[in-house]
This record gives sequence, structure tokens and C-alpha cells, in this order.
Amino acid sequence: MARLGANQYGKAEIRLMKVDRGSERHVLHDLNVSIALAGEMKEVHRRGDNTVVLPTDTQKNTAFAFAREHGVGEIEEFASLLSRHFVDSQASIHRARVHIEEYAWERLGTAPHSFAQSGREVRTTTVTYDGRGHRVLSGLTGLVLLSSTGSEFRGFAKDRWTTLAEASDRILCTSVDATWRHTGQANDWGKSYAAARAALVEAFADTYSRSLQQTLYAMGERVVSSVPGVAEIRLSLPNRHHFLVDLQPFGLENPGEVFHVDDRPYGLIEGTVLADDAGEDAEAW
Amino acid sequence: MARLGANQYGKAEIRLMKVDRGSERHVLHDLNVSIALAGEMKEVHRRGDNTVVLPTDTQKNTAFAFAREHGVGEIEEFASLLSRHFVDSQASIHRARVHIEEYAWERLGTAPHSFAQSGREVRTTTVTYDGRGHRVLSGLTGLVLLSSTGSEFRGFAKDRWTTLAEASDRILCTSVDATWRHTGQANDWGKSYAAARAALVEAFADTYSRSLQQTLYAMGERVVSSVPGVAEIRLSLPNRHHFLVDLQPFGLENPGEVFHVDDRPYGLIEGTVLADDAGEDAEAW
Amino acid sequence: MARLGANQYGKAEIRLMKVDRGSERHVLHDLNVSIALAGEMKEVHRRGDNTVVLPTDTQKNTAFAFAREHGVGEIEEFASLLSRHFVDSQASIHRARVHIEEYAWERLGTAPHSFAQSGREVRTTTVTYDGRGHRVLSGLTGLVLLSSTGSEFRGFAKDRWTTLAEASDRILCTSVDATWRHTGQANDWGKSYAAARAALVEAFADTYSRSLQQTLYAMGERVVSSVPGVAEIRLSLPNRHHFLVDLQPFGLENPGEVFHVDDRPYGLIEGTVLADDAGEDAEAW
Amino acid sequence: MARLGANQYGKAEIRLMKVDRGSERHVLHDLNVSIALAGEMKEVHRRGDNTVVLPTDTQKNTAFAFAREHGVGEIEEFASLLSRHFVDSQASIHRARVHIEEYAWERLGTAPHSFAQSGREVRTTTVTYDGRGHRVLSGLTGLVLLSSTGSEFRGFAKDRWTTLAEASDRILCTSVDATWRHTGQANDWGKSYAAARAALVEAFADTYSRSLQQTLYAMGERVVSSVPGVAEIRLSLPNRHHFLVDLQPFGLENPGEVFHVDDRPYGLIEGTVLADDAGEDAEAW
Repeated sequence: MARLGANQYGKAEIRLMKVDRGSERHVLHDLNVSIALAGEMKEVHRRGDNTVVLPTDTQKNTAFAFAREHGVGEIEEFASLLSRHFVDSQASIHRARVHIEEYAWERLGTAPHSFAQSGREVRTTTVTYDGRGHRVLSGLTGLVLLSSTGSEFRGFAKDRWTTLAEASDRILCTSVDATWRHTGQANDWGKSYAAARAALVEAFADTYSRSLQQTLYAMGERVVSSVPGVAEIRLSLPNRHHFLVDLQPFGLENPGEVFHVDDRPYGLIEGTVLADDAGEDAEAW
Repeated sequence: MARLGANQYGKAEIRLMKVDRGSERHVLHDLNVSIALAGEMKEVHRRGDNTVVLPTDTQKNTAFAFAREHGVGEIEEFASLLSRHFVDSQASIHRARVHIEEYAWERLGTAPHSFAQSGREVRTTTVTYDGRGHRVLSGLTGLVLLSSTGSEFRGFAKDRWTTLAEASDRILCTSVDATWRHTGQANDWGKSYAAARAALVEAFADTYSRSLQQTLYAMGERVVSSVPGVAEIRLSLPNRHHFLVDLQPFGLENPGEVFHVDDRPYGLIEGTVLADDAGEDAEAW
Repeated sequence: MARLGANQYGKAEIRLMKVDRGSERHVLHDLNVSIALAGEMKEVHRRGDNTVVLPTDTQKNTAFAFAREHGVGEIEEFASLLSRHFVDSQASIHRARVHIEEYAWERLGTAPHSFAQSGREVRTTTVTYDGRGHRVLSGLTGLVLLSSTGSEFRGFAKDRWTTLAEASDRILCTSVDATWRHTGQANDWGKSYAAARAALVEAFADTYSRSLQQTLYAMGERVVSSVPGVAEIRLSLPNRHHFLVDLQPFGLENPGEVFHVDDRPYGLIEGTVLADDAGEDAEAW
Repeated sequence: MARLGANQYGKAEIRLMKVDRGSERHVLHDLNVSIALAGEMKEVHRRGDNTVVLPTDTQKNTAFAFAREHGVGEIEEFASLLSRHFVDSQASIHRARVHIEEYAWERLGTAPHSFAQSGREVRTTTVTYDGRGHRVLSGLTGLVLLSSTGSEFRGFAKDRWTTLAEASDRILCTSVDATWRHTGQANDWGKSYAAARAALVEAFADTYSRSLQQTLYAMGERVVSSVPGVAEIRLSLPNRHHFLVDLQPFGLENPGEVFHVDDRPYGLIEGTVLADDAGEDAEAW
């Protein structure tokens, strides 16, 4: 009658704060950890036999205990540690995927123990372990970038339903959601992340944009060509429309000064850029 | 140096209300339409050449104009119409995917023109057209179901980090996110949707649950075995934990009466159920 | 240098589910309880002396324990019980305010233990107790109403910045946020709530609307004039704009059929309606 | 039967971006403007007579046109300008209240036209004009602060429902929502804002906290005593609980290192601090 297809289960959104108190100046690791396990799960689905089901509550406990035992460090490392643990310790688990979001804090001046949360931007990782090796993705989400000039949109296809005027000078604004795939282990995940973030920002600022697609490609190309060990990047860029307000009814010109920031609908540009010599690796995603 | 991989672009979240005024009793179609087009997009990414880029603004206009010209009807039909249009009318577009959410309204008594929005539950469809045929998914999201008894969780795997007590009578609560794939065109999409929704709800209510995985499978099996033309269903079921409050410090028993509803973390159970004779169709998703 | 002004503290958003298991057919009370206490709090603010500070954690425990000891019943009663408790048992607490949101569930068919969450609409109460008596507010939020005709907006004031065209037939849509004040204790809070909700909905459906202000007043007047014991109602009605889409560029008329549902900005109409003989009671709010 | 009480209406959440292009280095003003007007509004409520109703659409137009004509500058000034305009130009409008949120952007390096949105923190103002003078509030919301030590909670009141253990070293974390009232016009609103923000942050970091109330008072006192022209400040501080995870079941100590960040319920501490010589001014709020 029916059969089980792909499936996974786990604990999502474990909100974990680790304070490193090793020195007078504390360091924070503020994480949101999500775990998904897959394996021989037929019996639990078909008969409710939980014999091989490690509770999601246990997965949560493990995340907290590992933070204490091993520290957190870079999120790619912590996700690698956790994902390997579940596969290596539970015979029925064949694949573990751990996704972590990290929220940034900045020290208040020189205060050793006081912090302010910085930015909307979130650093991410997704590590998949299948018993043989780790596949590591890094990324960021919520980085909102804007160019107040240096962007146009012209020469596009037109059909019966096209009313959009060509724009030779517009605001370009997007919230960057980017995930990149590593070919192996980085020497220093924090340094690698900083380099990728810088490449994204610099390519956005450098590129005279004829379309958001062009900007997306430029950002992706910059990352895969300048950050060692990055094979592929996937970008999802909403076009946060800033519409020039028509002030002519009030006898006013509006030379690129006053805009209405619109919520919906929005353009959504999604694309992948690969290093020239990189293969695909569908299982990493 | 770098090459372009998979990519698509389009207008997302077009909020469209269509009022059928054909009779005294108006009918509402309250939609959120998202369009994604893919095709020969190398030049726009690499050089900013927009020659084959149909603006996302045009896509929005098309959705509104088609609602007027053709009506909306069932969302699977409207998504099919829109997706075919973009591929058939633009040589450079090879695949169009249209995702629609529909919000339900109920008539206020017998009032012909007055309505209240009903429920958090949203009906969805995703239609993919590649020039040869339509692949149609239907679904729903935000349907929150709860059993106040008839659920247990026992006999699970235990390791060093397991502290969870076995539960012989617990609250089971989830917010159903389900998407099912049709083998072809339904005779009546509305009827098919109603049957799938009923199957999900009835299987949830009928199943004595030894785990949420078992409930998921029962829900999926019910749909693929009872709704004609459904080949596959994918379910994502968060376990909305209701924790029994320990009232012993206050000298009170708590025999399954008072619970704390927790936000995070939550268990997340994801699974696919296929009809016995169904093949996979990765391109539909 | 400085002095302390008005202040209060408490536990907010205690998510409490109470299952009445007294009969085979379970009954759910799904609440979000927020408690705010005020009194002699100078020393804690100025010196961190917690002697008279009942922990917010204790307040949470009390809500759970009272749900077990006394049951929940109508939210106005549960809020009255809780607010009285804190003032009567803690000499330093002079005023307690308890706000409760209740989420509705509907039984799945005739199933005794299975439910679906119904609607976006939330029933609310705020009870203030000051040692002498209770002030009781009831309300609802998130009730989204729409009229597809029977609404106009004409004859309004115009100035240099007015471009809006007069509308003789428009969609009127709002999300009702209403709070009403009782003169004393209702005999049956559930019945009183149902009457107020019905009055709001019926006045909305009955009123030919020349402005949302007129609709607001009609809704408020219906409640204070038809629901026994209601002295005052405060309504906050966002105007959820549905803009007629201009289809003329495509050679199409649009006789009130296709609308764009806009997010922001939105009109916001706020008003109070009092029963003719009612006084004000600022301390209730 | 019924009578109209307090009421106001206006356009809410006008999302306005003003780009100052006066020099090579652009400057952004990214605002969310909400306008509320009150006056002789009986006839529109009772009879739908819109004669004195200036459309909310016109209010929106006015905000955009004024941004072009007068520039935006400091949000307190822009809100003052707008609020005065409506009262002075419409005889039937007796009071205008303009609330503005401003979102911060930081320049990308030395790029003249490229920016990243900074932080979750939002600067706010509310200006009320009644035909005689302006009442000005400034504020901020969404500033998340944390101390990883230097906070305790002991010596509190205990009753039958108290189970909380005393804490001699805990994490203190809050999201600051603060609004302060000016006695008149500041010389430099931006400088005044920076001083108030610095006072809040420094008092948070400086204060050894025996309770969040004490921290609240210290923050408020610092503002009213150090920022010229500030008469009063109102603070709303949720206690974002970080609970120490019990790792004893796993044979691990947890000396203030691993915490679970909880969502709900949360403590909520609200208080007002006034300058010693300041009176109240209810109409400002």
C-alpha cells in the first residue's frame, strides 16, 4: 500500500550560551543548534517501535554536555563533533546533520563581562557526517546591504504585460543569505569565515550593477576565487525594492532622494557559483 | 575561475485578492503568489546583459492580469496557467515554478459580502512546468493538531546522556506542514484537497501514538492510500512539547492536567511516504 | 538627583495548558498568562534590597498551581483569582494586574481527545486588583473581517498633498483589536464574551461604511448598547488596504475584481465608545 | 445610548528612505513614520461625514513631500515639523502625534554609496503637538545587553509557591526599550541621543546587579542626571533568562559556563525614573 521514503528526526533550535571564563575577559558563544538524524527508522514509523530511537531530548542534553566537555570554539568544529558522535555511537544512525546559527556579541568598551548583541547578521554552518567523512557548509544570513547609486536596470525583455520603466540610477538593497561548501577542513574556520564575508561585502560594493543577478554572480565568484578551500556558494538575494516616490503632483522633482521602501512583493534572485574545478556534492546540502 | 550553477529568479509574495462578483454572493480568492523562472541566464549573471530577463515586475503584472482574464479558481489551475505562460512565451525560459498560498475566509452568517478570515491553516500548491508537462504539488501548512491523551513514548534507545523518563500518557501536539505530489491532473482539485486534509486529520485522531514518527507515517499512508492520484507525501511535524508541570513541591499531584507549553527546542520529525507503485520525481520538488 | 516613578514587575507570557479530564470528553484551556505587580518597590530599585520582591519565578509557579487547585474556567475568573492572591498575600504588593490570552481549539468531529487549533483570533482579559475590588476588561484580537462591497470613502478634506481619488465601492478589511470594560462581575463571562463578539461582527456586516471611523463607532455602540454590564469599549482598527489594480495598460477593465493587498503603510483608526451613563475608569486600563 | 470617547486616526508605518546626495558621500535616513491625528471627529464616527477627515493617504504623501522639501535631519525635528503641519493647516485637528523609528546603516569602509544595516537597535521619537507647543520623547528599542557575571538574585520574598534557588552569580541579559522625555528643545538631538544611549550602556556595565530593578533604576538615573534637558525616562526590561544547565547527571560540573537561553515566560521589569525637579507630563506619552 505504502512505503517509507527519505526521513530524518532530531531536536531543533537548542538555544545554547557557552561562556568561556578561562580568563578575566569572558568570551561568549551564543548558538542555536539543530540536529537531524537518519538511519534505520522503518520500525518506528510502521509500528511505533522506538528501540533505535535516541530521544531528541537526549540530543539536546548531548549538545549541552559537549559544550561543557569540549568547549564550543568555531561552530564548524562543534557541529563536526556532534554529528560524528551520533553516527559513531548509535549503530542505527547512518547520517547526522547539525545546523548551527551563531549570534554575534561585541564587548562594551573594555568591560571584561559586559556585551551588546551586534547586528542582525547570523553566522551559520551545516555539517553532515555519514560515517566516512564530514561535509561542511558555512554561511551567513541577514546581512543587509545597500547601494544608493551605481545600480541600473535596463535593456530587459518586454512583453504585453511589461510596464516597468528602465532605470538608469536606482537603489539596490538586499538581505544576503549565503552558504558555501568547503572541499575539506579549513585551517582556521574563523579566518575563513571572515574572508568569505569580506569577499561578499567587497564584491557588492565594487560592482556597478546592471542587475541583481550580475551582483550575485560577482559576489559568488569573489568568494570561490579568493577564499581557499571553497568549492561552491549558493546565494539567495531578495530585491528589497526602494521605489522612487512620484512628487510631481506636489510640484517637486525627486532626483533619487525620497524612496518608499516596499515590503511585498519582492524580486528573489537565487544562484549558485562554483569554482572552476569543483564538482557537485548534492549530499552536503 | 568560476562558473554558474543552478539559478532561478522571479517575483515572490504577490499578495492578490480576487473577488468573484458574478452573483450576489461574492466569493474570495486570497492568494500569495511566488514565481521562479529558470533558463538561459548566463549572460545576465556574467555581464549584466538583461536581454532575456523578463522583469519580476512584469511577472507581477501578469499574475494580476491573468486573475482578471481567466479567473483564479483552484490554485493548482492558476499556478499551472501561469507557469505554462512564462515558458511558452519566453524562448529563454525553460522552467517556471509557481508557488501559491491561499488564505481561507468564511462567510459571516448569510451575509453576501462580509467575511471573517478563518484559521491559521494555509492551502498551498507548487506547480513546475518545463515545456513538456506540469508537475503538481498540493499541500497545507499551519494546521495545529493536538491529542490530550492516547500518546506515549517508551522503549527508546538510551545512552550516557539520556535523562528523559518514559511517558505512558502525554500530550501530542504538532503543526502539520504537508506537501503531496499528484501523478497527473485531478478532476477536481478542491475535492482532492478536502480528501487529503480529511485523511491527515482522521489519521491523526485515529492513531494511538507510540511516537510522532508513527503518527507521521499513519498520516502519510492514509493520504497516499485513500486520495486518488497522490503518489507521494512529505510531512514535517514539529513536536510542540507540552511538559507536565511538577507540582509536588506544592503538595499537589498533576495527573495529566497542567502543562507548560514550551517554545524551543522542539523535536522535528520529517518523513516521506510513497504509494507502493509510485516512482520518485525529484524535479517536482 | 532622581526619583522613582510608576513601576511594576512580573512574569510575562506563561504558556499554560490545562486539560480538564473530568469526563471522557476532555476540555482544553490554552492560555498565555502575564502578571504585573506594583507596590512598595523603592528599596529594590535604589539599593537592590529584594526583601519584598516575590520572584517572577514564584508567580509562574503560582499560575500553574492555581490551575491545578482551582481549575481555569473562564479567563476573567482565573485572572481575578490570581490578581487577588498576590495583593492579599503580600503586604508590599498594592496592585496586581493579570493579562491572559486564550487560544481556541475545536474538537475533531466527535473525537473525545483530539483537537485542531481554530483561528487566529485570541480572547483576552486584563484584571486589575488593588485590595478593594477587581476591574475587569475583556477583549479579542486578531479577528480579521472583510466586506467586498458596501464601503465607500468620499467627501473628505483635501489639501495640496491630496491625490487620493474618491472611492464609491471599495474593499474594507480590518483586523479587530477590541477591549471592553465591565461595570462589575458578569454572571457568565463566556456568554458575555460571545455576545460582545457577535455584536462586533454583526455591526461590521450590517453597516454600510462611509469610513472606517463610522464602522468603528457602529461596532462599539452595538457592544455597549447590547451587552449587559459593558461600560466602555476601545477599538483599534488597522485599515488593511486592498488597492484596485490598474489593468488598463493591458486593455482590461477591473470592476472591483482584482486587488493588491498591501502591507504598509496602513491606516490606523482608534476610538473609544462609552455607554451613555458610563463614567471613565482610567485605572482599569 | 452611546457616546464617543478618546479617538485618533492616521497613517501608520510609512517606510521612507531619504538619501542625502548633497556630497559625494551619500547619507541615509531610513525611517518608519506613524502619524495619529485627533480633533473634532464626532460627525465622521456617528454619521460617516468625512468633511474634516484628511485622508491617511494624504498624510503619507505629506511625509514623502516634506522629506524632499525640508530634508529629514534628526528625527525629532522631522516629527516636530510634521506634527505642527497637520494642526496648523487643518482647523479640525487639535493634536498630532508623530512617531518615528530610525534604522541605522554603517558605511562599508570608505565606499561613498555602499552601506550595511547595523544592529537590531532602533532609535525612536514621539512628538506631540497641540497647537501651543511640542512635547518631545526620544528613545531606543532592541538594544540587547548582557553581563556574564556581576549579577545575583538573593534575599527575596518566599511563599508556599517559591522554589527558586538563590543565585550568587548569574547571567543578566535584557533587551532595552527606553523612552525619555525632554523638557524642551535640545540644541543637538543627535548628540543628546548619543549621550543617553551611552549613559544606558555605561550604567548597565558599571552596576553590580542585585536585581534587574536595581539595574533599571541605575540606568534611568544615569540618563536623567547626566543628559541635559531630560526630565523623565521609562524603561521596559525583559529578563532574558539564561538558565544554568544541570550537568550532574552526566558527571559534569557547570561552574557558570553552559546555559539554556529560554524564550518564555520571561520576567518583565518596567519602571520610571524622574529628575528630582521634574514634574509629570501625561500628555507627552
